[in-house]
Amino acid sequence: MKKILILGAGRSSHHLIGYLLAHAPQQNWQLTIGDFDQQAAQEKIKGHETRAKAIFFDAKDTTCCEQHIGQTDLVVSLLPPALHIHAAKACIKLNKSMFTASYVSPEIKALDAEAKAKGLLLMNELGLDPGIDHLSAMKIIHHLQAQGAEIQSFKSYTGGLIAPAYDTNPWNYKFTWNPRNVVLAGQGTARYIQNGSYKYVPYHRLFQDVVTINVANYGNFDGYPNRDSLSYRSVYGLDTIPTMIRGTLRKQGFCQAWDTFVQLGMTDDSFKMENSENLTYRDFLHAFLPELPSKPQATTEEKLAAFLKETPQGTVYKKIEWLGLFATTQANLPQASPAQLLQHLLESKWQLAPQDQDMIVMQHLFEYQLGGKNYQLTSSMVAMGDDPQATAMSKTVGLPLAIGAKLFLEGKINLTGVHIPIQPALYEPILAELETLGITFVEC
Amino acid sequence: MKKILILGAGRSSHHLIGYLLAHAPQQNWQLTIGDFDQQAAQEKIKGHETRAKAIFFDAKDTTCCEQHIGQTDLVVSLLPPALHIHAAKACIKLNKSMFTASYVSPEIKALDAEAKAKGLLLMNELGLDPGIDHLSAMKIIHHLQAQGAEIQSFKSYTGGLIAPAYDTNPWNYKFTWNPRNVVLAGQGTARYIQNGSYKYVPYHRLFQDVVTINVANYGNFDGYPNRDSLSYRSVYGLDTIPTMIRGTLRKQGFCQAWDTFVQLGMTDDSFKMENSENLTYRDFLHAFLPELPSKPQATTEEKLAAFLKETPQGTVYKKIEWLGLFATTQANLPQASPAQLLQHLLESKWQLAPQDQDMIVMQHLFEYQLGGKNYQLTSSMVAMGDDPQATAMSKTVGLPLAIGAKLFLEGKINLTGVHIPIQPALYEPILAELETLGITFVEC
Repeated sequence: MKKILILGAGRSSHHLIGYLLAHAPQQNWQLTIGDFDQQAAQEKIKGHETRAKAIFFDAKDTTCCEQHIGQTDLVVSLLPPALHIHAAKACIKLNKSMFTASYVSPEIKALDAEAKAKGLLLMNELGLDPGIDHLSAMKIIHHLQAQGAEIQSFKSYTGGLIAPAYDTNPWNYKFTWNPRNVVLAGQGTARYIQNGSYKYVPYHRLFQDVVTINVANYGNFDGYPNRDSLSYRSVYGLDTIPTMIRGTLRKQGFCQAWDTFVQLGMTDDSFKMENSENLTYRDFLHAFLPELPSKPQATTEEKLAAFLKETPQGTVYKKIEWLGLFATTQANLPQASPAQLLQHLLESKWQLAPQDQDMIVMQHLFEYQLGGKNYQLTSSMVAMGDDPQATAMSKTVGLPLAIGAKLFLEGKINLTGVHIPIQPALYEPILAELETLGITFVEC
Repeated sequence: MKKILILGAGRSSHHLIGYLLAHAPQQNWQLTIGDFDQQAAQEKIKGHETRAKAIFFDAKDTTCCEQHIGQTDLVVSLLPPALHIHAAKACIKLNKSMFTASYVSPEIKALDAEAKAKGLLLMNELGLDPGIDHLSAMKIIHHLQAQGAEIQSFKSYTGGLIAPAYDTNPWNYKFTWNPRNVVLAGQGTARYIQNGSYKYVPYHRLFQDVVTINVANYGNFDGYPNRDSLSYRSVYGLDTIPTMIRGTLRKQGFCQAWDTFVQLGMTDDSFKMENSENLTYRDFLHAFLPELPSKPQATTEEKLAAFLKETPQGTVYKKIEWLGLFATTQANLPQASPAQLLQHLLESKWQLAPQDQDMIVMQHLFEYQLGGKNYQLTSSMVAMGDDPQATAMSKTVGLPLAIGAKLFLEGKINLTGVHIPIQPALYEPILAELETLGITFVEC
């Protein structure tokens, strides 16, 4: 019998826990689900009480952390990224391996030598993005390289979106994932390489630096660059590639409208607004709109139209108006930053309805030379949520992690130290099994 | 005999130390000048060895800090702002008062109750800006309020600039002060109040939100808003003022040109550029310039002209070109952020020549109602450096601090706790003495 400790029973844990529970009898696993909210963990194991138990888990409490990690064979974690280091340190101390879907932090990276010395594996970035993007890209890259191809360009975009049938607002967007991360997305300077030149795009130009990504049957999307597309060149074995961009997808037209908030400064999270508890959304917008020198008494509507260089019938103007930013309703948020006020409003407008379902879209675009000829290869994946609990996000984040954990416990992953899933031993079986679960890439 | 411990013997300490040395015999003071660079301290006391000694001082070394502070009657500090807390804690422990020219940090503010309980004074913001701006503004504000005036608008701008006779480059700017602070100036969101409405201006629009400030005999300047103009409303007793803006001055035209770097993202200090040690300045500029969709092979010059919407004869284009950003010289700066690369270039182009002299410009603009009528009052101060050591910056930062210290040792300041100089007991005698030293405000 093998014991698995699953950390985090939040929204994205549905498929991870479901998969592990489903395989537990045949694999002879005993599962423990730990969460700060023990009730949430309890609900996830209903009907599986013989194979699973729910516990209260506080990663920051060293005693709690070590007590439970000491009793398991493998830790699989969907904890918030900042908490992983606590679990990882306990794993090292108590000789356990750990799988997560989070980016390798510098603190985790620093455990590499110790993990290697003890023969332990700390596998990270085994979710969707990062995760399935690595798996699927590396399979193509290795395949092309094995043929002798020289990859000239690799662009990869992923988006967590609302499924077309539930796409009912003018922004073509709803919160299917952490709203705060969506509001703060892209802050910093995006870095990528294009035609051999490094490119740096500051946040205030990010949502203008957009490419159109077409996905067959799903139409056009905006793709904007992620913060760091450069560090994955060496990870992917593409150190000298002339063009490499990793980015995020939104439905076409979203970025132009979102850029309004960036330009106005309404996504700033670095200070608290004066008197924020009494601000109406109209005040909030007004405080960021520049004065009209020609009309000092201009209304908020007039100032926005002038700022956008649109009429009130303009596409961006209509989107801003739809959000309720001209309304004199109060936010009632004391001590709030602009980003917090904006998030508060968006959460009321972009919330999922009870039956809404989400969609994940990923596309890799390769350009390569082979035998003196130029080729293009596009590989796309679209995953749909099944119901409001079984979201596409939960499926695409949790299933790679679950399959990876299974492979590890079956003794099929012979790695030690800190890793991300770029090896055939991971991408081959995980992609194959994901395909049987409906997560498939289409090449053209 | 009274002992004064002066901390910091850097460039801005010239007048502070000069004033205190000059008054030492008559006042029967004994001075100790402490600096991490003891040699620098030694040079400042040449010819005054009977009244002053130089010591090595390390604020972070508690033993060193307490040893010297324990032996003095008053601490006067021009240390870098972040070091003040170390000296302040030693002052509280050893029952000493302290004067600085730095902003009140939250850590310093937290010492208020302890300082009060012990009857000690921690006086801060007694330099130029902050410092002379408080003194001169409060004198006018109290005067207007005593007459029964209602102040409708208060705008205050200060700039450290190059004196007109030495203003020899197309930017009309040289580094007369910390270059790093100049490059990073304004990062964050500027907050002020205008006609009763809060206004928030994000960094990427800051250098476009410029007003023209005219100073008689000195021409026009650009004034751009400081980060926080709001918190001084209550400090100045102007809680309900409809318009209040504090800002920074540059020569007219500077802000439009500087905005190029902001728009391109070249002032970002949050990440290191790839391969920065091998970058030429041309590469550096090129990496931030957007592609021209109509001309993928466009040169750096063509891309800049398109970005600026100028010809190569344009005023901004010419300023960028003059800095050497088209040159293929290497910066040779490993692991450098964009801001560090830009600063490195600017330090070579904006450096003071040996005989160059600086200039300080300050202007307050008031609008008020009195007896049903509207009035305007403008108060301006221009201070010139005397020679490359006796800079205007050193004079305007150091003299208020020195005079304040003298008043304190004469028993003329009956304050305890953490303060800034907004009281008649400070601004009356300090402004009067500054006037005798050539630092005068002209009202019109």
